[in-house]
Amino acid sequence: MTEASSEHRWREELNVAMSAFLKPYASGTCDGLYDPIHYLLGLGGKRIRPLLALATCEAEGESLAKAMPSALAVELFHNFTLMHDDIMDEAPLRRGRPTVHVKWDENAAILSGDVMYTLALTALAQTHASALPAVLDLFNATAREVCEGQQSDMAFERMEGVGESAYLDMIQNKTSVLLAASASMGALSAGVGKARSQAWYDYGLNVGLAFQIQDVLLDAFGESGQTGKQVGGDILCDKKTLIWLHTASSEHGEVLRQWLGIQPAQGSDQAAEKIRCVRDAMEAAGADVRAKELMRKHVDLAMDALGRLELPEDKQQWFAALAEHVTTRNH
Amino acid sequence: MTEASSEHRWREELNVAMSAFLKPYASGTCDGLYDPIHYLLGLGGKRIRPLLALATCEAEGESLAKAMPSALAVELFHNFTLMHDDIMDEAPLRRGRPTVHVKWDENAAILSGDVMYTLALTALAQTHASALPAVLDLFNATAREVCEGQQSDMAFERMEGVGESAYLDMIQNKTSVLLAASASMGALSAGVGKARSQAWYDYGLNVGLAFQIQDVLLDAFGESGQTGKQVGGDILCDKKTLIWLHTASSEHGEVLRQWLGIQPAQGSDQAAEKIRCVRDAMEAAGADVRAKELMRKHVDLAMDALGRLELPEDKQQWFAALAEHVTTRNH
Repeated sequence: MTEASSEHRWREELNVAMSAFLKPYASGTCDGLYDPIHYLLGLGGKRIRPLLALATCEAEGESLAKAMPSALAVELFHNFTLMHDDIMDEAPLRRGRPTVHVKWDENAAILSGDVMYTLALTALAQTHASALPAVLDLFNATAREVCEGQQSDMAFERMEGVGESAYLDMIQNKTSVLLAASASMGALSAGVGKARSQAWYDYGLNVGLAFQIQDVLLDAFGESGQTGKQVGGDILCDKKTLIWLHTASSEHGEVLRQWLGIQPAQGSDQAAEKIRCVRDAMEAAGADVRAKELMRKHVDLAMDALGRLELPEDKQQWFAALAEHVTTRNH
Repeated sequence: MTEASSEHRWREELNVAMSAFLKPYASGTCDGLYDPIHYLLGLGGKRIRPLLALATCEAEGESLAKAMPSALAVELFHNFTLMHDDIMDEAPLRRGRPTVHVKWDENAAILSGDVMYTLALTALAQTHASALPAVLDLFNATAREVCEGQQSDMAFERMEGVGESAYLDMIQNKTSVLLAASASMGALSAGVGKARSQAWYDYGLNVGLAFQIQDVLLDAFGESGQTGKQVGGDILCDKKTLIWLHTASSEHGEVLRQWLGIQPAQGSDQAAEKIRCVRDAMEAAGADVRAKELMRKHVDLAMDALGRLELPEDKQQWFAALAEHVTTRNH
């Protein structure tokens, strides 16, 4: 079976399991408590976290069913964090549609988010009893790190002079640890020991870090026809990304500071001017080259971790392709 | 050992365990993420939920340590719900002090609340592996019901003609199920089977319901010197409590509707007038008598459940005293 058809099958089974799991919590029940959950999940998404959990379990020789509790849990948890982060970040749109707190209100986004977290744990509790303690411990530690990452992210926006390593710690907590945990939880569900679960964790963590860096690069240097979203969004709102921080601490930092706080509307002449100036400064500072090197480093680390697992070639293929895809994707 | 000294010991051990558990999540760390947690827990509270978990475990012949994960989890979870409910209810004060979203801001209350829920699960995950699946399932089901109860509570405030049974379902979900789960989780941690864990659940549920009804009665008919808070607070803000709903559907309902939306400041002459008029209507409708009967019914049901457990007299004493105390307390 080819890797593409495996992924197709994982995705199919995930969709079936998610629908079955959510059936008792239908839209319209409980005074609408569950409506925002169905709405947010219905907006789509790559489902990379649950696919990772299913993939690692199968790579370890066990059936998908064993990892399905983890797969459902990480996807529900991820969407719960989106629902709450969008309130905190005052984000009006998520995947091009109104965010939950805009479409309903803040209270709905808070409470439906809370119950979505509960549902993540309800799914996770179905893990086979022998694997449950290890899976639950990792899930809880990860949830804590994700909250800590969001807190740092909000704190950084109010701070001057955030260093690159503090920034990388923040994005690691905010997003990469959940990919790492997804990979590791799938393997733990299959009954692997400490060394293998750690190798899967390292694989997921480095894929996640590389992915985040590529995201920042695409926002600044991508082409909007390919990314499907407006390029330069981070630049326009002065988002303190890796390449922003690198440039700010270089001799070209003055350009960033000149534009700081000037946030022209998307598509305006001034917006184009700001994007062009800031992008030029970033390139002059070598921030793009440095970010690409860092991304490559994390892809290499992911491949090293994958190597430690000594999987047969056919089982390794999907994971290697996923890691390499990070550097070549354009959306 | 007397019941009073047992409770003192449980409380001491709970405090020690909570401090030890929270040590890695100190105030001032992680950009202040954990500060609101220490603040809210520091405001005090009866700690009735964790004490119940510890008490039932010991009544079932096991050491307190076995139930400590559940005890910590229910107290952390309860305070997490307070932090988020206070945002949703726009409550300025909690135990006479500023609420978290007032003292910090809404984002802090959302995110510190989220991580407090995570810490509840982190504590719970320390449950002995043989009891973990049952304890976790009950905790998750309860968390979901608590969210559903809060959703109903908010929906009821916008609805006309809420019935008594819908109201009782709501308060059962919003508060009583967590007391029920606390009692049952302590017993499950001690390794009891289905029948005993259910009896403990029924005991806790009915104590919780009786407690809630007494709360409503004290607010309307208590004396402020004894309750330590302003009597009539529910009446002034037209809170649709059990006795409000009973009166509204009686021939004396017109009085409530006349005052509806008129919310005079605490302590004003008009406030005293509103409280007097509404209270008279409630008594004329027999709402207070009906509520007392209902409270008595739940105390009796709690005592029945306790009887099913056939505990030796010395072990039963604290639980019986707690149930009976509900009807006689004046604060």
